[in-house]
Amino acid sequence: MRFELLATDKTTNARRGRLITPHGGVETPVFMPCGTQATVKTLDPRDLHEEGCELILCNTYHLFLRPGHEVVKELGGLHRFMGWDRTILTDSGGYQVLSLAALRHITEEGVTFQSHLDGSRHVLSAEKVIEIQLALGADILMALDECPPHAADFDYHRASMERTARWAKRCRAAHPGDEPALFGIVQGGTHLDLRSRSAEETRRIGFSGYALGGLGIGEEPARRNAVVAHTTALLPADAPRYLMGVGTPQDLLEGIAHGVDMFDCVLPTRNARNGTLFTSTGRLNIKGAAYARDERPADPACACYTCRCFSRAYLRHLYVADEILGLRLNTIHNLHYYADLMRQARQAIEAGTFAAWKAECLARMPSDPSTPQHPQETHTDA
Amino acid sequence: MRFELLATDKTTNARRGRLITPHGGVETPVFMPCGTQATVKTLDPRDLHEEGCELILCNTYHLFLRPGHEVVKELGGLHRFMGWDRTILTDSGGYQVLSLAALRHITEEGVTFQSHLDGSRHVLSAEKVIEIQLALGADILMALDECPPHAADFDYHRASMERTARWAKRCRAAHPGDEPALFGIVQGGTHLDLRSRSAEETRRIGFSGYALGGLGIGEEPARRNAVVAHTTALLPADAPRYLMGVGTPQDLLEGIAHGVDMFDCVLPTRNARNGTLFTSTGRLNIKGAAYARDERPADPACACYTCRCFSRAYLRHLYVADEILGLRLNTIHNLHYYADLMRQARQAIEAGTFAAWKAECLARMPSDPSTPQHPQETHTDA
Repeated sequence: MRFELLATDKTTNARRGRLITPHGGVETPVFMPCGTQATVKTLDPRDLHEEGCELILCNTYHLFLRPGHEVVKELGGLHRFMGWDRTILTDSGGYQVLSLAALRHITEEGVTFQSHLDGSRHVLSAEKVIEIQLALGADILMALDECPPHAADFDYHRASMERTARWAKRCRAAHPGDEPALFGIVQGGTHLDLRSRSAEETRRIGFSGYALGGLGIGEEPARRNAVVAHTTALLPADAPRYLMGVGTPQDLLEGIAHGVDMFDCVLPTRNARNGTLFTSTGRLNIKGAAYARDERPADPACACYTCRCFSRAYLRHLYVADEILGLRLNTIHNLHYYADLMRQARQAIEAGTFAAWKAECLARMPSDPSTPQHPQETHTDA
Repeated sequence: MRFELLATDKTTNARRGRLITPHGGVETPVFMPCGTQATVKTLDPRDLHEEGCELILCNTYHLFLRPGHEVVKELGGLHRFMGWDRTILTDSGGYQVLSLAALRHITEEGVTFQSHLDGSRHVLSAEKVIEIQLALGADILMALDECPPHAADFDYHRASMERTARWAKRCRAAHPGDEPALFGIVQGGTHLDLRSRSAEETRRIGFSGYALGGLGIGEEPARRNAVVAHTTALLPADAPRYLMGVGTPQDLLEGIAHGVDMFDCVLPTRNARNGTLFTSTGRLNIKGAAYARDERPADPACACYTCRCFSRAYLRHLYVADEILGLRLNTIHNLHYYADLMRQARQAIEAGTFAAWKAECLARMPSDPSTPQHPQETHTDA
């Protein structure tokens, strides 16, 4: 994997870049849809192509349990298995284990847990998560980390951050090569001194990219932005930066302004299935009776398949009538909205107008709840 | 609407024809997928185009209750509402009322019933079903009929058939024009004398096409085929013939051999959602553990999107993991299978090889259960 830094904004830390992976280019800043179980829920690969997606995230924990990484490997890897020929990033699975699985237990070795499917016992060690991700065949792998609860105290955060650094070292040793790319994860909660140490240690180990974990899980957005600004300044300029599990359109714009290149969140896909559509003027709840006879597209400013072909009245009908097509059309729209927001951000950075463009976008968006407050709501679309 | 009879088979009564409606041509014999609630479940209009669909059926009962025919009319009619620019046939709603709705009651006026959604009371009279269908804006409307249970006695069948004829006359009077087309329905159970009388009376009223109702609801296939053969011989050669709610691939081949031009059934769409795939060598239950590592497409002889791009292993994974994409990919495959079977039948009729082709097809298909035995399973995909 290569990362090309194409432009840097003058008044913010926003960056315009490009990832080159074995499965094509990825223009950054980029939002990655969640393909938890080897499918971005309700969509097929053509939908993703058509709405401008170049990179998706799949969840190692889920694929490890079902259908199993060995099965995926035997079938030619995740790309072939799911018919997706562009870039895939897999997480380490640690996050899901800690937030979803029953009876999980953290040791120096890794995380012991029982499957949420059948209660079987497993250990995800640093070495094991690399082995699984290599078998899945993703283009970008993530090191094992621990994401402590927001409410954890300083001592817990410090101990956890130090363990995360030791796991990172073992992950690197288990996969010392450059292909596929391996990203390290900076932890430390909202403690700037812990973030500094974590950034320094992760950087010293050396990765193809650096993620910021442990955010979007209950902290105030202003505090998060401060942590992001503090941390990205400590990371190498020539490597991509990935803010994990964040977030709303507003959150993405702030992240970009602070030098983040990559994002993932279940918000656009899960909200789509709940009938909430992102539009250029804020969220729209398609269930509303007000839309029963509304001929307009969900967002008159949107060029997605859903907005080109269907009215709010039809989308509402599908939702109210429990029709699966509605979930898909809503998902297409929301992912197009996110992809288009990123495309506009990239253009604004190139044009040197990012700050003004961002202010204008935010002024159009009513104040919204920020990124979901529960860890399991951020980057597992299950 | 025009119907062109292009070829007639020499050794069977199979016909090759073409319907010309305000929304394009429809090559016959044709299978109509069920778009009960203004969507063929899980598919969008592009999917239908791509898999060769030129004609779909929508259910008047469901659309009358939700979103309401007046709403659909206000929004520009069913084609615009659902984004489907090819031909639509609507049923009368009588069948659904009789098989689905609570507290239904048949009078000379029509059918009184309570909504399955909110318990509200409605009357579907002969005049009302025409009014509703005209508001929906379908290309082909169906007259109100009664489909008695298979187990009903002769006297009930006779009285019901006579009432159906009176309703047909009132439907014709409520819509005496030619556009949109109106089809009459021949009833009479499996009693050939009742079918003769019904065919004669329906023909005397005069319709653009003639349907055979009350079949595929529990009678033996051989008996059904006898009724179909007997009835089609009494219908005008220059009008299309529609066998309602039938059926399996085998049933369709028999129907074609007896001079039927149009079919509808929920079987391919509902079975898709249950994980049952139709293939050139019989049915395949994708849930089976045997497919967990099977790299082959569902049907190696199939050219649908699903078979071109995805393995049985992936389809099984999606099904087992409760992923919505699986329901859609299965539906695409099954509808392609049905559309392709009809395409092959048309070619065979044109080539004068229908009987041999049909025998060959049937020999490849293991004996299957015939068309579902419960009325509500035949042409409402709800």
